[in-house]
Amino acid sequence: MSADRLIYLPLGGAGEIGMNCYVYGYGPKGKERFILVDLGVTFPDMDGSPGVDLIFPDISWLAERANRLDAIFITHAHEDHVGAVGHLWSKLKAPIYCRPFTANIAKRKMEEQGQPENLVRIVQPWPETVKAGPFSVSFLPMSHSIPETSALVIDSPKGRIVHTGDFKLDKTPLVGEAFDPELWAEVAKPGVRALVCDSTNVMSPHAGRSEATLPEEITKLIASAPGMVVATTFASNVARVKTLAEAGRAAGRSVVLLGRAMRRMVSAAQETGVLHDFPKTVLVEEAGNIPREGLMLIVTGSQGERRAASAQLARGKYLGMSMKDGDMFLFSSKTIPGNERGVLRIINAFSEKGVDVVDDSTGQYHVSGHANRPDLKEMHALMKPQFLIPMHGEHRHLREHVKLGLETGLKGVLAPNGTMVDLAGNEPKVVEYVETGRTYLDGTVQIGALDGVVRDRIRLALNGHVTVTLILDENDEPLGEPWCEIMGLPKQGRSGTPLTEVLEHDLDQVMGRADDSILTDDDKLTEVLRRGARNSANAEIGRKPEVTVVISRLVD
Amino acid sequence: MSADRLIYLPLGGAGEIGMNCYVYGYGPKGKERFILVDLGVTFPDMDGSPGVDLIFPDISWLAERANRLDAIFITHAHEDHVGAVGHLWSKLKAPIYCRPFTANIAKRKMEEQGQPENLVRIVQPWPETVKAGPFSVSFLPMSHSIPETSALVIDSPKGRIVHTGDFKLDKTPLVGEAFDPELWAEVAKPGVRALVCDSTNVMSPHAGRSEATLPEEITKLIASAPGMVVATTFASNVARVKTLAEAGRAAGRSVVLLGRAMRRMVSAAQETGVLHDFPKTVLVEEAGNIPREGLMLIVTGSQGERRAASAQLARGKYLGMSMKDGDMFLFSSKTIPGNERGVLRIINAFSEKGVDVVDDSTGQYHVSGHANRPDLKEMHALMKPQFLIPMHGEHRHLREHVKLGLETGLKGVLAPNGTMVDLAGNEPKVVEYVETGRTYLDGTVQIGALDGVVRDRIRLALNGHVTVTLILDENDEPLGEPWCEIMGLPKQGRSGTPLTEVLEHDLDQVMGRADDSILTDDDKLTEVLRRGARNSANAEIGRKPEVTVVISRLVD
Repeated sequence: MSADRLIYLPLGGAGEIGMNCYVYGYGPKGKERFILVDLGVTFPDMDGSPGVDLIFPDISWLAERANRLDAIFITHAHEDHVGAVGHLWSKLKAPIYCRPFTANIAKRKMEEQGQPENLVRIVQPWPETVKAGPFSVSFLPMSHSIPETSALVIDSPKGRIVHTGDFKLDKTPLVGEAFDPELWAEVAKPGVRALVCDSTNVMSPHAGRSEATLPEEITKLIASAPGMVVATTFASNVARVKTLAEAGRAAGRSVVLLGRAMRRMVSAAQETGVLHDFPKTVLVEEAGNIPREGLMLIVTGSQGERRAASAQLARGKYLGMSMKDGDMFLFSSKTIPGNERGVLRIINAFSEKGVDVVDDSTGQYHVSGHANRPDLKEMHALMKPQFLIPMHGEHRHLREHVKLGLETGLKGVLAPNGTMVDLAGNEPKVVEYVETGRTYLDGTVQIGALDGVVRDRIRLALNGHVTVTLILDENDEPLGEPWCEIMGLPKQGRSGTPLTEVLEHDLDQVMGRADDSILTDDDKLTEVLRRGARNSANAEIGRKPEVTVVISRLVD
Repeated sequence: MSADRLIYLPLGGAGEIGMNCYVYGYGPKGKERFILVDLGVTFPDMDGSPGVDLIFPDISWLAERANRLDAIFITHAHEDHVGAVGHLWSKLKAPIYCRPFTANIAKRKMEEQGQPENLVRIVQPWPETVKAGPFSVSFLPMSHSIPETSALVIDSPKGRIVHTGDFKLDKTPLVGEAFDPELWAEVAKPGVRALVCDSTNVMSPHAGRSEATLPEEITKLIASAPGMVVATTFASNVARVKTLAEAGRAAGRSVVLLGRAMRRMVSAAQETGVLHDFPKTVLVEEAGNIPREGLMLIVTGSQGERRAASAQLARGKYLGMSMKDGDMFLFSSKTIPGNERGVLRIINAFSEKGVDVVDDSTGQYHVSGHANRPDLKEMHALMKPQFLIPMHGEHRHLREHVKLGLETGLKGVLAPNGTMVDLAGNEPKVVEYVETGRTYLDGTVQIGALDGVVRDRIRLALNGHVTVTLILDENDEPLGEPWCEIMGLPKQGRSGTPLTEVLEHDLDQVMGRADDSILTDDDKLTEVLRRGARNSANAEIGRKPEVTVVISRLVD
């Protein structure tokens, strides 16, 4: 009996929706050869990661073993699957395989970060295979909310793994390949050892709806609008963008694509041949000459992002366009949990302008790109895997997906990020827990989520800041009283005296009580002044600020 | 014809859900006598108000005219209606009228802030009236999600205004008074000049459901649970707390109330006689001796608040209690938009412990306390007002509510915060826009939302902080190079050298280029160093931090 292990190890995506990153390995313990599936990002928020630009999975474990990594496969071009390739590739240095549309996006990401884009290699779909160490890997076309989404068929000496990537079961996706049950059945025929399966929508009780259910309703809606129409959706949902544009044209409107991502995605889809017959658009510069009831803008910013076109239109003018009483704004999208505040801010701003906002609450103008509960069951039944490994989901989704599998007797594995599972035997076996986490792109620097940098910024936001400076002369005697400057604190508190004066007065008292053992020791003196400032502020304004103490000593 | 005006002026609540605060006035222009309806708070969030403790409406306009304010009426005891009385009363100094349960809560708030609680005066419901200047005001019982909620019938020389407060049309509310259509019809009979009406749920298309639809399903659910059960809801929803407790008892469980607000609300309801027959509870100290399958905890924290019982149980132990595999956690509540992240954090933490989380997604375990669209129509039809003034809602809700009124020919007034409307004539007339806004309780200090204090904290969170100190000698020559300390910034950037060293080096260069006109001028020198530090950081770490510059000059 061979002791070779067949490893599954999620480094990201199994414990959150976002930053997908899954390692597969095969070989003797400690000598496995690896492949990586997806290398995505997740997005920061003010609650937990203020000021951060992007969030990556912490791939230190794999980076330390990069010499055993044979290939990187990208299932599709969503940011949470491809977004980190440019930033992290230099730590891995393996070739990146993907299909043409995804490659178009991946190459641009490599290029933007000064990485070799020629290491992005284009693969045709099943039955073409890529040999990568002990693995043979094929891209199996699947429907989702972006073109050329693929599952991966990963063949190893210990059997076949099907890694679904993100998917829905859509037989009429409008753009890109339909879900083809016969093709999938053919893949399943030799037996599937493990189905590693998208869990995002496991809580949604009803079968998913096709992209093709939307055009009729959207066309009716746009035709009924009296003023200008602005619609937003994810730029990468090329089928939806096309539906919106066609609805605009059908209503006799000139269509404008607004927002860099919107234009980039449409041209990527056209360049790679996945998008045909996209309606003619006009440039925003020409839109000024067209009466507003003859215009339809398709814009970025469906999640309320502050810098995207939607938010800018909500605040006022954007590239010369503005919305007013009688116009319509359509969210052909859903709000991702956590983004509600930003989206509502936009909706209320439009309301103040008299713009009618239409959202997906009726279910007529948006469908999800993920498989719902009954669709997942259908997938389980089609694949009949020996093991079911839920991936891509928060912990609650993974857990629920395991339960769903149990309903039909599937052996499920709950493996959140960092759980290394050996799939080689008759039972899946957790063999190790690997340290995982998040890496922040902070400005242009990559830092660990636990480095304390962002924790300090959160503290500054909650507590404000005091700078205390003190100069000591050659005899370790203070030259005057400590000097205080505040930032993010009320200018005065209960006494009515300026806060800085109160702080300086109190710290002067503190200095008066300080003996030589303190005055000659920078660390002790810093601590005494820090504590003094915090207590003084707490008494005056009910808040203990963050404090920076700078002690300068004059020397002869 | 009298030139007396009948004024409606929202200072809070008309443009947000929260911090309700409505002024009514009657009299000649500039000499109106006023009453105030509700004085609530709203809650801060990390996005817009980090570190803030509470948010109040800015009542400066009314405070400047406090000598013309005759009374304050509180419709019910929710925080967004009564929460600011203790903090703002000293600026208004008028007696506060409310019904007994609300008074119990209001008195405690006055007491906590050292205000005279004897100015909280208890009123019996309609037909009892309070004379307040030119107004006669009655409390009209209504159903909502807290006991003794009342609409206000405000009679003026120019007719009757009905101010609904928050409400739903519940004929079987389980605790407290039912909606009584006959009583309301009697109030409407003399004619209603203006219906000032809750708008919160105007987007909800189906008629609201009664509190009485819940006990059967909740009882079944609790009976089916194998392990410990923990349920959360708003503490003030005393009917729900009772339903939960009764379901626990019916399943043979000992019931524990956890969280200060939970125990306080139940005892306030018992003390004031609105709650009878509450099941016997046990103290958490006794719970340790009871097997977990015999326990049910009812806890605070349905919105994911970090310090509440729910969040503490999700993180680990709370007062000796902890949750584990096989237990159940029930959200008998909905998540208020903006709180999703905190709630999901809790759900995922429970998932990691193997706890089954049940939420309101099936509609079986929670009903809303607000009137939905069809209920609002019913209210309009019952009151037949001359004018409809939507209140309590975001701008989108107010606007939609005006539209809803138009469907049955009602003359609506869209009056967001600060809009002073004169209701004395045949047409409602906007007569003035008053400056309104938000006041923050920041620690123990009240500051204006636009004072810049919180803006600075947000900048610190996004950009981090650098302290630059420089000492100049008696001849305005620098003593050594500028000294830099960082907070909330990466320790090093692209050069690999510590960031503080890079900053100090670059600022030393800056100083080398500074001539006397700069060296002798603190403002210029500060600006040069600030800009130098920002540019240096931007080159090194791709981020422009906030900078505090401290210049010390030695004198002879």
